[in-house]
Amino acid sequence: MIYFSGDFLKYIYFFEEGSKEQKNLLGGKGSNLAEMTNLGLPVPKGFIISTQACLNFFKEKGFPKGLEEELNSSLKKLEEKTGKKFNSENPLLVSVRSGARVSMPGMMDTVLNLGLNKKTIKAMTEKTKNKRFVLDSYRRFIQMFSNVVLNLEHDKFEEILKKEKESVKAEFDSDLTPESLQKIIEEYKKLIEKETKKPFPENPKEQLLLSVKAVFNSWNNKRAATYRKLNKIPDDWGTGVIIQEMVFGNLGNNSATGVCFTRNPSDGEKKLYGEFLINAQGEDVVAGIRTPKKIAELEKAMPVVFKEFVVVCEKLEQHYKEMQDLEFTVEEGKFFILQTRTGKRTAQSAVRIAVEMQKGNLISKETALLRINPLDLNQLLHKRIDPSQKLNAVAKGLNASPGAASGKVFFDADTAEKQSEAGPVILVRHETSPDDIHGMHASKGILTSRGGSTSHAAVVARGMGTPCVAGCEELKINYKEKIAEVNGKTIKEGDFISLDGGTGEVFLEEVKLIEPEPDKFFSQILEWSDVIRKLKVRTNADTPKDAVKARELGAEGIGLCRTEHMFFAPERLPIVQKMILSDSTEERKKHLEKLEEMQREDFEGILEVMKGLPVTIRLIDPPLHEFLPLREKLIEEVSELKSSGKESELKEKQVLLNKVNELHESNPMLGFRGCRLGILYPEIIEMQSKAIAEATKNLKKKGIDAKPEIMIPLVGIAQELVFSRKTVESVLKEIKETEIPIGTMIELPRAALTAEEIAGYADFFSFGTNDLTQTTFGFSRDDVEGKFLNKYLEKKILPISPFVSLDTSGVGRLMQIAVSEGRKAKPKLKLGICGEHGGDPESIYFCNSLGLDYVSCSPFRVPIARLSAAQAEIKENKK
Amino acid sequence: MIYFSGDFLKYIYFFEEGSKEQKNLLGGKGSNLAEMTNLGLPVPKGFIISTQACLNFFKEKGFPKGLEEELNSSLKKLEEKTGKKFNSENPLLVSVRSGARVSMPGMMDTVLNLGLNKKTIKAMTEKTKNKRFVLDSYRRFIQMFSNVVLNLEHDKFEEILKKEKESVKAEFDSDLTPESLQKIIEEYKKLIEKETKKPFPENPKEQLLLSVKAVFNSWNNKRAATYRKLNKIPDDWGTGVIIQEMVFGNLGNNSATGVCFTRNPSDGEKKLYGEFLINAQGEDVVAGIRTPKKIAELEKAMPVVFKEFVVVCEKLEQHYKEMQDLEFTVEEGKFFILQTRTGKRTAQSAVRIAVEMQKGNLISKETALLRINPLDLNQLLHKRIDPSQKLNAVAKGLNASPGAASGKVFFDADTAEKQSEAGPVILVRHETSPDDIHGMHASKGILTSRGGSTSHAAVVARGMGTPCVAGCEELKINYKEKIAEVNGKTIKEGDFISLDGGTGEVFLEEVKLIEPEPDKFFSQILEWSDVIRKLKVRTNADTPKDAVKARELGAEGIGLCRTEHMFFAPERLPIVQKMILSDSTEERKKHLEKLEEMQREDFEGILEVMKGLPVTIRLIDPPLHEFLPLREKLIEEVSELKSSGKESELKEKQVLLNKVNELHESNPMLGFRGCRLGILYPEIIEMQSKAIAEATKNLKKKGIDAKPEIMIPLVGIAQELVFSRKTVESVLKEIKETEIPIGTMIELPRAALTAEEIAGYADFFSFGTNDLTQTTFGFSRDDVEGKFLNKYLEKKILPISPFVSLDTSGVGRLMQIAVSEGRKAKPKLKLGICGEHGGDPESIYFCNSLGLDYVSCSPFRVPIARLSAAQAEIKENKK
Repeated sequence: MIYFSGDFLKYIYFFEEGSKEQKNLLGGKGSNLAEMTNLGLPVPKGFIISTQACLNFFKEKGFPKGLEEELNSSLKKLEEKTGKKFNSENPLLVSVRSGARVSMPGMMDTVLNLGLNKKTIKAMTEKTKNKRFVLDSYRRFIQMFSNVVLNLEHDKFEEILKKEKESVKAEFDSDLTPESLQKIIEEYKKLIEKETKKPFPENPKEQLLLSVKAVFNSWNNKRAATYRKLNKIPDDWGTGVIIQEMVFGNLGNNSATGVCFTRNPSDGEKKLYGEFLINAQGEDVVAGIRTPKKIAELEKAMPVVFKEFVVVCEKLEQHYKEMQDLEFTVEEGKFFILQTRTGKRTAQSAVRIAVEMQKGNLISKETALLRINPLDLNQLLHKRIDPSQKLNAVAKGLNASPGAASGKVFFDADTAEKQSEAGPVILVRHETSPDDIHGMHASKGILTSRGGSTSHAAVVARGMGTPCVAGCEELKINYKEKIAEVNGKTIKEGDFISLDGGTGEVFLEEVKLIEPEPDKFFSQILEWSDVIRKLKVRTNADTPKDAVKARELGAEGIGLCRTEHMFFAPERLPIVQKMILSDSTEERKKHLEKLEEMQREDFEGILEVMKGLPVTIRLIDPPLHEFLPLREKLIEEVSELKSSGKESELKEKQVLLNKVNELHESNPMLGFRGCRLGILYPEIIEMQSKAIAEATKNLKKKGIDAKPEIMIPLVGIAQELVFSRKTVESVLKEIKETEIPIGTMIELPRAALTAEEIAGYADFFSFGTNDLTQTTFGFSRDDVEGKFLNKYLEKKILPISPFVSLDTSGVGRLMQIAVSEGRKAKPKLKLGICGEHGGDPESIYFCNSLGLDYVSCSPFRVPIARLSAAQAEIKENKK
Repeated sequence: MIYFSGDFLKYIYFFEEGSKEQKNLLGGKGSNLAEMTNLGLPVPKGFIISTQACLNFFKEKGFPKGLEEELNSSLKKLEEKTGKKFNSENPLLVSVRSGARVSMPGMMDTVLNLGLNKKTIKAMTEKTKNKRFVLDSYRRFIQMFSNVVLNLEHDKFEEILKKEKESVKAEFDSDLTPESLQKIIEEYKKLIEKETKKPFPENPKEQLLLSVKAVFNSWNNKRAATYRKLNKIPDDWGTGVIIQEMVFGNLGNNSATGVCFTRNPSDGEKKLYGEFLINAQGEDVVAGIRTPKKIAELEKAMPVVFKEFVVVCEKLEQHYKEMQDLEFTVEEGKFFILQTRTGKRTAQSAVRIAVEMQKGNLISKETALLRINPLDLNQLLHKRIDPSQKLNAVAKGLNASPGAASGKVFFDADTAEKQSEAGPVILVRHETSPDDIHGMHASKGILTSRGGSTSHAAVVARGMGTPCVAGCEELKINYKEKIAEVNGKTIKEGDFISLDGGTGEVFLEEVKLIEPEPDKFFSQILEWSDVIRKLKVRTNADTPKDAVKARELGAEGIGLCRTEHMFFAPERLPIVQKMILSDSTEERKKHLEKLEEMQREDFEGILEVMKGLPVTIRLIDPPLHEFLPLREKLIEEVSELKSSGKESELKEKQVLLNKVNELHESNPMLGFRGCRLGILYPEIIEMQSKAIAEATKNLKKKGIDAKPEIMIPLVGIAQELVFSRKTVESVLKEIKETEIPIGTMIELPRAALTAEEIAGYADFFSFGTNDLTQTTFGFSRDDVEGKFLNKYLEKKILPISPFVSLDTSGVGRLMQIAVSEGRKAKPKLKLGICGEHGGDPESIYFCNSLGLDYVSCSPFRVPIARLSAAQAEIKENKK
């Protein structure tokens, strides 16, 4: 903070005094104007009232001490610099604009053409010989000022304007004659005097003071406050105010105005991309009254200006080392640049620009990598909705699996599968179950009305790379009538709908999709990432198909292979159910033998695909009742059968219901699952271990380098691991495959808290951060995601869902304890993460800082993780 | 360890060489014999082979090096001391007994009368002039030796004995003539030679060596191994072997044998308590052939001996400073003491003995307090089963609420209530619900077939002080037929059963109960405890009745008052349900207004009872669906109504089912409950805060010192507390009761991990260790207690249920983090525990070491907690 004459803060900075680093004090727009001025670029002269002045304005409920004096002296200085003067024959006209730390487009207020009054209108008219231009400028000034400063309704002014246009049959504003404009101005002034009981201010200084106050206050207008809330911008930043000499692009055919990107923001090509209008002001470009011309045509229209323009663009890129989005005006052949900022761009463009800027020696490889938001890579891997369409979502669910899809709706898997031959289909269900797999495979997208991001639909869809919107509670499905209602609208079977799995949006129409376009630039980024990163990237995959895809995308192993998904296949489920319903260990073993053969084949398939790379296979995890029919459904069926008289069927169902009741749990998440199953029924994990060991043996015989690792889930007590390990080891010994590492998941708080003891019996730890987040927060994901998590985000109780990005202070602290105490017990302990956070950039940064060995994520997240891991390492090295 | 001549371990210790501190080396019995010998008490001479010899015997699979030589020389020394000799005219007879570190009564083997053979029989007969005695001693020796050393079946010997008794028409062994005994001895020897192909050993040294080996080996017999497993005695302790000169209480009418406690083990009175038999051996007392006489009669029968005996008892108590349980023998007028040990006693007796020993200056107050197992106080507070009855439990459930009950079985609350007027009743249900409260109140005991220690039945019963056995899964109840089956037996309505809520046992008969008898000694112990302890003791109470009871038992406040239990009252539940089913905030507020009045009255009642003491009131905690009918039941009803044609009823139920479905959660423990409710529906906690504040105001007007504290449950994120606190504070401000402290429960891992931040917004923390244990372990208590926790205890995966005693390494570590970081943020933060661990002695020790301010437990646990808190402090000071 700079103090002025000992007592006062310095509040005002001329462009020459600032730089682009001073965004906090001068705002984004202001600091860039300062930067450009110092670069020697043709920026209209001006100064900035700092954000600190704004904050003090709020604190002191009025202009802070010294500001008005400073403003007066700055104005004098500006008059000297421009050679123009307020309220003179050579009048100074200025714009008054807001400029906060980050761009908040259109949220706050602007006053243009300030300084016009009777006297200066006359002078300007003489100077420009263009009465219409001057009067129109004045009209705009009054209208803006009335709206921004005097808080008068815009509509009343528009009405006056409209009336006059109608009476003289003018189509556009520009068709109005000076006489009409004069009339309008009179009307405006009458209206103002009537509403404010005061005449419109003639004195430019008064105009200026009032405008500055109004811009300060616009920081707290409703629009701006809402925007900040939505974009998580703190309320206590405040805005700067930029006071700058006006330049006019509408002074004739040697004047112009335009906007331009220094590279193509859509595909990234290094070529100026923008448009301009001859004899126009900025707002005319936006208003779309005349069609602007492509920037390339400026060369022909104003060759000298164009030359200068190209040089400026090059200079800006060289200086900012970033693609710029700039605004310019040509006033009577003189080129001015009014604004520059980093240009927004598509994912594809971002990747290409980063690579080409590195090749052009503008930036380092590290900077190139940091320029790309890893999550944007999703756009290059999945279909997306063509953004040129104007679409209204009819509902929003959870963004459960990325990508967009469009197709005909079907409410059951069989029909969906059948109809998929005729064209793209979308499967719509309350929730999906393993019975729906064939329909899910056949569908382009999946939409469910219940269930969270870990529901069956979500997990399976992510694995398949199929777009999915889950838990869309606004959707009321009626299976019997094959319709769904959503916010008053009806979807019938066969209707077209579209989904965006990246946003969770649902549309009641067919939409145009864009195919994913990974290109050489994409590959280059990943190549660089692989050189830099230390974290290995594995994948979560349960099938050879997923494994193939993941390997293609760069996975260096499987971090989580869930064996139970294999149990759900239609030909296996009955055997699994018989196994569960067995009354004796002998009977159970008999059914397990059949399953063993199948599991061995599964493992051979996956291990073969992943040859040479580690494959972590997790032993059975879910509670057994998940393999049996739903309790609610059985109760209903039994109840119905009772009145039907079908005795034998009733008896059979009743037996099944009894078993399901026996297995029923109030909180299955915290019940009889994970390693607890294998401790009470060792024969189940014996079967699985045997299948793994024999698969390995068989492949090795064929010369294939199979590298399985066995993972025991849900350990919370060291003795659980001791017990399970003993069971597994005795099988491995029998099959003579004793080299297979045995480790555990760390997915319960107690596992993390006692990691030192547990590490004594584990060859590796894999953080199961999904469950760890659930137990640490006491959040059942399926329950909280639909019910109150969104409200928590709205109310800022949480900054982001802890299921999306690792909660470092709670869950992360447990991980940190487990890492440091686990490694204390066993310095070479291999550490990884296999929760979904393994594919989230922020979480990957955290895992890197913890010193994990690898992250594991779903196949389509592998590229994202590769880039994030590199970014993590670059950030780590910068610290 | 003592080494002998540099090379060998010293394995053998004469009684004179040992002391009572050497239990590990010499075993319990041996070290006490040593101690008594050194006290100058008349102990028959002997020595001990150490437990180390036993362990080395196992290691070296035979007598360890040097042991045999040491045994020979020790024998020689014993011969010198006694003036008797093996295999001589003045023969030495010895007993060979086992003696481990702790007493394992009857588990290992003993050989008496060792040293008898042809030669010594003759000598003994001449010496005692009692051929029958000598031959009977020899017969017993052969029988014991054959069983213990030669592993021959006991039955075969008994058969020979029985045959002879029948042939001579002898009723008792003692009726047998020397001739018969001689015949039996011949038969025994023939049997032995036939079975072992060797004659019975004549050489006493051989007899001795074989017996010592057999005693060593008996450490590993099946009986002993099972006993150790049950009693958690390590397998690697080994046993000592005691070789001691025989003395005989059966040498005539100036001989006797007996057992005696130095005080009454049943009520604690300071008076010798025991019995003896003239002319008998120890086993005759146990065998119950003759009725032993009360010890007081010994004075008359043997006045000189009795005098010596009283002196010995006094000496023992003075020396051991503990009540002793001793065995003695009088051989021809000479008094010998054979064994002494700390006497087992009832809870009542323990309390009296501790107090009287302190008053008698034998022990300090601290020692007196440490002498009492706090849990034993349960026996003084609840009815218990008269231990004189021989009972067989038909089943065992969870010991959910202590005390015993006997009464007629009824399967529904209404009948139970009605029948309770006629006599004691026991309510038997699958599980209870708030609808059953009246029946539970009317019952002497409650038995459920489902649910854990936190089930409705268990929680309510503990609050009421009613005995309860919960989750007795062997019990199959058929409500329709009003019967229950349990392990093949049938219980009909109106049948008598009995429960022991302290052990979980169920009996199919009426049993005699003992009324609880807290007396002046009990009060004395608690008085001393109160002086010593630092931890305050509060209670968990939801009703004025519970509060009265708890205050009577010494509670210093309420640590947990659950407001939602008040919602379950029959006249309130419908209002609560309407509130939940409301479609708008307005409608909800309307119903809440009615509830507010009721809650205010509740709070006034409790706060008045507890005047002057703090009352922590927890705002609403359970998920809302707990107040609505069961989902399964509704599904069934809707399904039945569908076929009934009752359209309007069906519609109504369907609406209810839809709401229940909407509120349904997969894991309600981790769902929409606790502070989450008040964040989404602030009007609920506003109502509760208002009721608390107004109750306080009303009481204060009447001059009653109401001290409520408001507790926000299930906080895991500091912002949740900020939000809830703001809601509560705004109400308190409105009512002008802003002094009420606002705190939070720490019952989620994340709350503990971020305690420093949370403490910033909390006036106090109360550890909710029930939920904290559930989330830290990932154990849903209702699910794991019935399903696998017992298996975990059996397999020693856990040493004790973490719901009974705090898991210090996991849950305790989280508490420790919360305590130290919470106090770091706020040094005066008040800290308590209100989970059920607040009434568990071990957990209270831990809480004391953490530096908590108070523990809170159910009313009947308050005395236990007071004593435990004092013990904790004593132990802490000893460190």
